[in-house]
Amino acid sequence: AKKDGVQLPPPVVHYQMNNVTTSSDPIGNRETVLILTPMVKFYQEYWDNLLKLNYPHELISLGFILPKSQEGNDATAALQEQVKKTQSGPKKKRFASITILRQDTELPLRSQAEGDRHKLENQKPRRAAMAKARNSLLFTTIGPKTSWVLWLDADIVESPPTLIQDLASHNKPIIVPNCFQRYFDKEENRMAVRPYDFNSWQDSLTAEDLASKMGPDEILLEGYKEIPTYRSLMAYMADDAKGRDPHKEMPLDGVGGTALLVKAEVHRDGAMFPPFAFYHLIETEGFAKMARRLGWKSTGLPNYFVYHYNE
Amino acid sequence: AKKDGVQLPPPVVHYQMNNVTTSSDPIGNRETVLILTPMVKFYQEYWDNLLKLNYPHELISLGFILPKSQEGNDATAALQEQVKKTQSGPKKKRFASITILRQDTELPLRSQAEGDRHKLENQKPRRAAMAKARNSLLFTTIGPKTSWVLWLDADIVESPPTLIQDLASHNKPIIVPNCFQRYFDKEENRMAVRPYDFNSWQDSLTAEDLASKMGPDEILLEGYKEIPTYRSLMAYMADDAKGRDPHKEMPLDGVGGTALLVKAEVHRDGAMFPPFAFYHLIETEGFAKMARRLGWKSTGLPNYFVYHYNE
Ligand SMILES: Nc1nc2c(ncn2[C@@H]2O[C@H](COP(=O)(O)OP(=O)(O)O)[C@@H](O)[C@H]2O)c(=O)[nH]1
Ligand SMILES: Nc1nc2c(ncn2[C@@H]2O[C@H](COP(=O)(O)OP(=O)(O)O)[C@@H](O)[C@H]2O)c(=O)[nH]1
Ligand SMILES: [Mn+2]
Ligand SMILES: [Mn+2]
Repeated sequence: AKKDGVQLPPPVVHYQMNNVTTSSDPIGNRETVLILTPMVKFYQEYWDNLLKLNYPHELISLGFILPKSQEGNDATAALQEQVKKTQSGPKKKRFASITILRQDTELPLRSQAEGDRHKLENQKPRRAAMAKARNSLLFTTIGPKTSWVLWLDADIVESPPTLIQDLASHNKPIIVPNCFQRYFDKEENRMAVRPYDFNSWQDSLTAEDLASKMGPDEILLEGYKEIPTYRSLMAYMADDAKGRDPHKEMPLDGVGGTALLVKAEVHRDGAMFPPFAFYHLIETEGFAKMARRLGWKSTGLPNYFVYHYNE
Repeated sequence: AKKDGVQLPPPVVHYQMNNVTTSSDPIGNRETVLILTPMVKFYQEYWDNLLKLNYPHELISLGFILPKSQEGNDATAALQEQVKKTQSGPKKKRFASITILRQDTELPLRSQAEGDRHKLENQKPRRAAMAKARNSLLFTTIGPKTSWVLWLDADIVESPPTLIQDLASHNKPIIVPNCFQRYFDKEENRMAVRPYDFNSWQDSLTAEDLASKMGPDEILLEGYKEIPTYRSLMAYMADDAKGRDPHKEMPLDGVGGTALLVKAEVHRDGAMFPPFAFYHLIETEGFAKMARRLGWKSTGLPNYFVYHYNE
């Protein structure tokens, strides 16, 4: 309402979707990025790494979704504290906007320990729940002015500060770096790295054959010796030579979601994270397949690294 | 920025998703409704009917998506004129917010005449384009506070003013009225009604059998005598007796989108309009199947009518 009591008509917003670009020069074109993070635990290292991203923060919006469990309450409190600090700190570090969603459904698994999370029989309900969380977060935060969506897991604790620009420079609809993990190598008595995310792969005839024999609701999982798929995993294709090209590309059929840059129009077309068996794939792997059905291809960067927390 | 030059921190919005209810008493619970309309042509009768909906307008947001063709430009201009009029008119008639999107892709078909639109060979590209338009509109307008989504085609020119309350009173995840059309019956020399939308149906063994023999990208369409499916069509199940029960329900496997009420959480879970063959179904029919895979069932109201424009 205006001061003199005359009511202003409520806002009408008008968008030309083709004015929203996604290009290899996102900063030059002032393209907005929506960083989406499903979160069960809050890691300070994640937040610190996020703050170090040197893509202009005024072009970045953040979205989080947390379960309504006790663990989710604790993580929300910790997250809100950091959000408050950042958004009242130096102007350059502040983000354009931040949305925090609390889920209305319970987690299907009680234990969030790495060993339990990765048990084969726990994968389908667990990844279906994560897919629904991702979809809720995506559907409620993506707007008509969003150019890019960066999926970033809450336990990604290290990445180049130029992550967004580097990935966007390839100008691909869907692009995924290689997710590794630092650990202490007892034999060598020093820190080392190992592959962490096995969801980025190129399909194999074995996997296609296995899938063709499955029931309609069965899913094929990667990284379990009980069912070898002989897919080509990006995790194993990293070049450890000094002069390696970090911008080397490879086509992918499945993608992981620990860090994943997607042109917003791919999601707008309808590509989401299937919480059900979609071509015997689920969640981020199913997303790559669904995007492919919509005409969008996935690309991997085997020599470009982000790092997952080590419990 | 505040007057004294001190910058306020950008907004942080925090949502408890379980505080957003969808109930059989949506007005009592102040539940928000998002009415979404893909639009190629503007019909004054559509707008007049929309204004007559007596669900509290301050709880209703509107979203439109129009193609960037000449026809789309004309419709946008006509729509904007009416929007301006309504939003500066009596307070009670104004809507909470209005979003108008212009597509970034061209229409696949040049002619929008009813005869051309309904030709069998035009259906797949046409309905894929409409599915993408629906997804873009949905993904960019649904928010964390949306309770219900009412899909309403731009050529629905007549419905009960209590449409939203009536459909919501069934408290179903997905519910669809019967879409008819008024016409002049020359033989009887008077106005009459006939079924219009054939996309609301219960599946048949014949259709399942036809689907099982199709290639992965083929789709099964309803209402074409070239491929009889023997599905049970809601269009033919209307009771024309005076004392009929307008609230009679029937379970559905496919739904039409001319008028369609969906609990927002169904869409948030990931149910969208597949622009590709999904179980040999596409667009709104594919949506019903996808929702079903997510655990949500569809309901039809054979004796509750809305009316489609007659060219
Ligand atoms: N909101 C929400 N986040 C989840 C849920 N399950 C996992 N996450 C988050 O989703 C991301 C991936 O899950 P995580 O357990 O780390 O997967 P893993 O590293 O592949 O074992 C992390 O950011 C988790 O915090 C869930 O049910 N709800
Ligand atoms: N934005 C947009 N709207 C469309 C497109 N095609 C159809 N529509 C609208 O979608 C709705 C359904 O299309 P219509 O041609 O009426 O379908 P029919 O009644 O089943 O023949 C109507 O509201 C149309 O105005 C499209 O490509 N883009
Ligand atoms: Mn993780
Ligand atoms: Mn129509």
